[in-house]
Amino acid sequence: MLNHFCKKPLWECTRTLAAVAQGRTAADTVIRGARLVNVCTAEVLDGTDVAIAEGRIAYVGQSAAHCIGENTLVIEAEGQVIAPGFLDGHIHVESSMMGAGEYARAVIPHGTVGIYWDPHEVCNVLGLEGVRVMMDDAARTPLKAMVTTPSCVPAVPGFEDTGAFVGPEEIAESMTWNGVVGLGEMMNFPGVLAGTDHAHGELAATLAADKVITGHYSVPETDQGLNAYVACGVRCCHESTRAEDALAKMRLGQYAQLRYGSAWLDLPQLAAAITETDIGTRFANLISDDTHPHTLVAEGHLDYILRMAVGLGIPVVTAIQMMTINTATCFRMEHELGSITPGKCADIVFLDNLEDLNVVRTMIDGEVVAERGQITFDLEPFSYPEWVTHSMHLGRAITPGTFRVEAPAGTAEGERVTVRAIELLPGSVPDREAHVALTVRDGALASDLSQDVLKTFVFERHHETGTFGVGFTKGFGIKRGAMASTVAHDAHNLLVVGTNDADMALAANTLAEVGGGMVVVADGEVLGLVELPIAGLMNDLTAPAMSEKVHHLEETWAEIGCTMPSPFMTMALIPLACLPELRLTNRGLVDCTTFQFVDLVVEEG
Amino acid sequence: MLNHFCKKPLWECTRTLAAVAQGRTAADTVIRGARLVNVCTAEVLDGTDVAIAEGRIAYVGQSAAHCIGENTLVIEAEGQVIAPGFLDGHIHVESSMMGAGEYARAVIPHGTVGIYWDPHEVCNVLGLEGVRVMMDDAARTPLKAMVTTPSCVPAVPGFEDTGAFVGPEEIAESMTWNGVVGLGEMMNFPGVLAGTDHAHGELAATLAADKVITGHYSVPETDQGLNAYVACGVRCCHESTRAEDALAKMRLGQYAQLRYGSAWLDLPQLAAAITETDIGTRFANLISDDTHPHTLVAEGHLDYILRMAVGLGIPVVTAIQMMTINTATCFRMEHELGSITPGKCADIVFLDNLEDLNVVRTMIDGEVVAERGQITFDLEPFSYPEWVTHSMHLGRAITPGTFRVEAPAGTAEGERVTVRAIELLPGSVPDREAHVALTVRDGALASDLSQDVLKTFVFERHHETGTFGVGFTKGFGIKRGAMASTVAHDAHNLLVVGTNDADMALAANTLAEVGGGMVVVADGEVLGLVELPIAGLMNDLTAPAMSEKVHHLEETWAEIGCTMPSPFMTMALIPLACLPELRLTNRGLVDCTTFQFVDLVVEEG
Repeated sequence: MLNHFCKKPLWECTRTLAAVAQGRTAADTVIRGARLVNVCTAEVLDGTDVAIAEGRIAYVGQSAAHCIGENTLVIEAEGQVIAPGFLDGHIHVESSMMGAGEYARAVIPHGTVGIYWDPHEVCNVLGLEGVRVMMDDAARTPLKAMVTTPSCVPAVPGFEDTGAFVGPEEIAESMTWNGVVGLGEMMNFPGVLAGTDHAHGELAATLAADKVITGHYSVPETDQGLNAYVACGVRCCHESTRAEDALAKMRLGQYAQLRYGSAWLDLPQLAAAITETDIGTRFANLISDDTHPHTLVAEGHLDYILRMAVGLGIPVVTAIQMMTINTATCFRMEHELGSITPGKCADIVFLDNLEDLNVVRTMIDGEVVAERGQITFDLEPFSYPEWVTHSMHLGRAITPGTFRVEAPAGTAEGERVTVRAIELLPGSVPDREAHVALTVRDGALASDLSQDVLKTFVFERHHETGTFGVGFTKGFGIKRGAMASTVAHDAHNLLVVGTNDADMALAANTLAEVGGGMVVVADGEVLGLVELPIAGLMNDLTAPAMSEKVHHLEETWAEIGCTMPSPFMTMALIPLACLPELRLTNRGLVDCTTFQFVDLVVEEG
Repeated sequence: MLNHFCKKPLWECTRTLAAVAQGRTAADTVIRGARLVNVCTAEVLDGTDVAIAEGRIAYVGQSAAHCIGENTLVIEAEGQVIAPGFLDGHIHVESSMMGAGEYARAVIPHGTVGIYWDPHEVCNVLGLEGVRVMMDDAARTPLKAMVTTPSCVPAVPGFEDTGAFVGPEEIAESMTWNGVVGLGEMMNFPGVLAGTDHAHGELAATLAADKVITGHYSVPETDQGLNAYVACGVRCCHESTRAEDALAKMRLGQYAQLRYGSAWLDLPQLAAAITETDIGTRFANLISDDTHPHTLVAEGHLDYILRMAVGLGIPVVTAIQMMTINTATCFRMEHELGSITPGKCADIVFLDNLEDLNVVRTMIDGEVVAERGQITFDLEPFSYPEWVTHSMHLGRAITPGTFRVEAPAGTAEGERVTVRAIELLPGSVPDREAHVALTVRDGALASDLSQDVLKTFVFERHHETGTFGVGFTKGFGIKRGAMASTVAHDAHNLLVVGTNDADMALAANTLAEVGGGMVVVADGEVLGLVELPIAGLMNDLTAPAMSEKVHHLEETWAEIGCTMPSPFMTMALIPLACLPELRLTNRGLVDCTTFQFVDLVVEEG
């Protein structure tokens, strides 16, 4: 497909590049004496010069002295390694809780030059118009924010209310946008396998536009189902959790995107697909999927994943291929991106050496955009439209009374009623349906700290329907207060969990006032708050500022007694009705094994 | 780019493929128990089943039993090897002297499923309209005849008259044709390096259409010039003659197409780029460029090149990658072609084993199209339009008198005149400018058998201009008679070489009558004739019939005393004014080192 992520299309600069390569015209920039990681031939070539003009590479060889003119910027890189800029083949910017501009500021100094971004979260809240705003934010930065249009909005049609709907027509329309390079992760693999019109309509719209379908095949099955999925043109998948799954995908010609984000740390399991075989690795990628601000600040982005991969025994040049040329080839853009070769965009990462793999400089389209951890381009605050920063549309007042859960008709004070509770399992994405006996008090059912069971509410916040779902959650361990979040996958409605109705109302109303975010309250007081006014998902603070805010919030969780690691992540999955076993949306409790709504109260059988 | 070389676009068959993979719908064909050459992971996987529907692969795995229905064709392949069908990344069908239909009949049984065809020869004679007719001929067969539009017609503007002209506008127009996938070999690398409007206009038209530029960089230079050429987006090159050239191209991200055709046998020199390094080989291809009917009949096509590559020490799976997935990736079509993986066109070659590498069956788009050396599809004779089969437009009568070469004014009978002669060097593409003294007889200059010097004429045959060029050739060794050919690169005018004027006229007129071809005459008698009525370049005979005809003609060359191996090939290059040192076109003698017309008679200095 045509590349809209460059300074100029290649056909406008062939004459200049030819002239520069031969020394007839001076280069804009020359890099001298670097160790080149050649991802085409999988070699490291010492003493390499590179000449750059029009944002593209004009010359790679032993001496670019002939390309240097009066105004040429010469970068002496002796002792340094140069590799193609890193490309993240699957990422949700929203997981960083930052806007795309601030995200770019955070990742570019780590060598990231391009991301294949599925803006699934923001699309669930604000639709494709919201995606366009995020793309505008991203476009202010040099980062190549290549978008794959979200395919599954809502994630589980019929079981929740989202802010938007995406179907085949919306996909077809988005494929005409310059910044769109494919279809976002097709989580609806059951629809693909079953042959539904919705799923196959989206696939067809993408293929007919000659773009790339990205995948999400999250079951450990590698035979009939995976074949069906791959046969439909799904070109990559980041959902392998076992080495044999990744290997099976590569053997079927699907790019296995080995994941190492903040939460989903699959790479250590998956690396064996490479380190314990002698397969060709051209179908292997390294990706992050979701990266939280703390990880970006403390560890890095793809550079961190690269160090991890090498630490796991993947040869360093192979690992670099897996985040450069292999990624570009996955998206059929390797004629423009992913290697340091003539004609390509001059996207180059400078590393201190091939052992420590620390990024010292990043170049995009021939411009130095980061030096030693700091961006070198200007980035003013982005002016988001009002409808983006005011996305809380609850359509009802929330008071302590809102959280009263009436006991079933006919039950007496002190009687025990068995309810379904969502039991969270530490470190596990699936949850479990627990049956818990609660005592009727004052004609209602309340949180029961002795059993670690908490009232849980999900309020629709997009269309002012005023609807909400009611359930109970088991496993947080908190002893007082309440918490709320608008990061609540995938509809991102307002999720509230708490020990008492007053604190739950305070938590909910605090977020309603600030436009969304995450909050912890206790005893009528806000203990910690991360405002996320951009779609209720993001802020425009820098990564260090966000990291600090989130860290503070996590401390307040502990303060109210939470014993769970990364409780916000686990909490955010409570409404995600495509995950087993029991989930709660604004429409009610969903049995995600049978895909039916179920009652809160368990009928005695 | 969208693939028009399949039974149906993928987006029309995703539902069916998903259903077949899961056994809900029966496959059209199932292959059982084969050894699979997996070009994605570079492995050989035993006991592999493949299920096929809609001409595409639906399932690859350990058992496709669930895909077999009542009407499923089951191919038991135990003991056989299956590999992706072979793709020739650079080929001129015209070199086979057969139309595209008969060419397909010849190569498909050798495992060839697709060719990237530069119809440069026919375009020089008949223009792009002629190319379209050839594409129609090809389209009657299952062979995927993917066209790269000829970029250099005429090859040497200003020095010859061709039948057609191709420039940026024609290139842009052709890029809208379904069968066109790129730009044909950009032989005008001096124009690319110099930045001419013509060359860069053609590059731009191709790039803006999102198609692939194929190359021809024939000088042993790997630094500034090659960088300039690659920077202009030229994605592949088949003109390496030294291993270091091929290696340099791969390092610069250009596909090195290692050539082993009938005439240009570079592979033995080039293999060292792989066998004596440990580079990654994804940028290496194996191609034929030009294959004569004799080679097709006696040796094969890509299967022959594969055996040669393996014989030279290239690992067999690597060599197969070099004519399957690597080739498809070069043309950015690897999402459709080049691997046996779900969703791809079911183009499969069956081999007896991985040692002998004999093709026993070829499948294209799911259909068995050849079994044990014979095509299994119907191929009726193609009805070429009259303007294709009548391309001899000489515009003048040719008589023995036409060949009289007047001695320079003022020279006396018996005087010696020094002329420039084209000295052919056995086994060499370049020739040499020789200076030869000829004795004036009867006021004219004649062939001089004692010096092995023969009169040589090139008649314009496209536009009835009646123009012709006059020269002498040294080195054929013939003692009597004459020969003529309309295979005369690249303008394919009528070339006549002979010992006497009467035989030269007979040779010329014989070809004029049959619509072009190659002929040997002596003493007023036609000894051998290969009629090539299709554009004066091709016949619609089968490969064995053509091979026999050509073989007979070669015998008649020996009969008249020729001592040169493959004299027709050498003869055909006499008018190619882009090759050093001295060439003859219909406009006259060309000094190809200075690119100037020169006189026949050498002025005494």
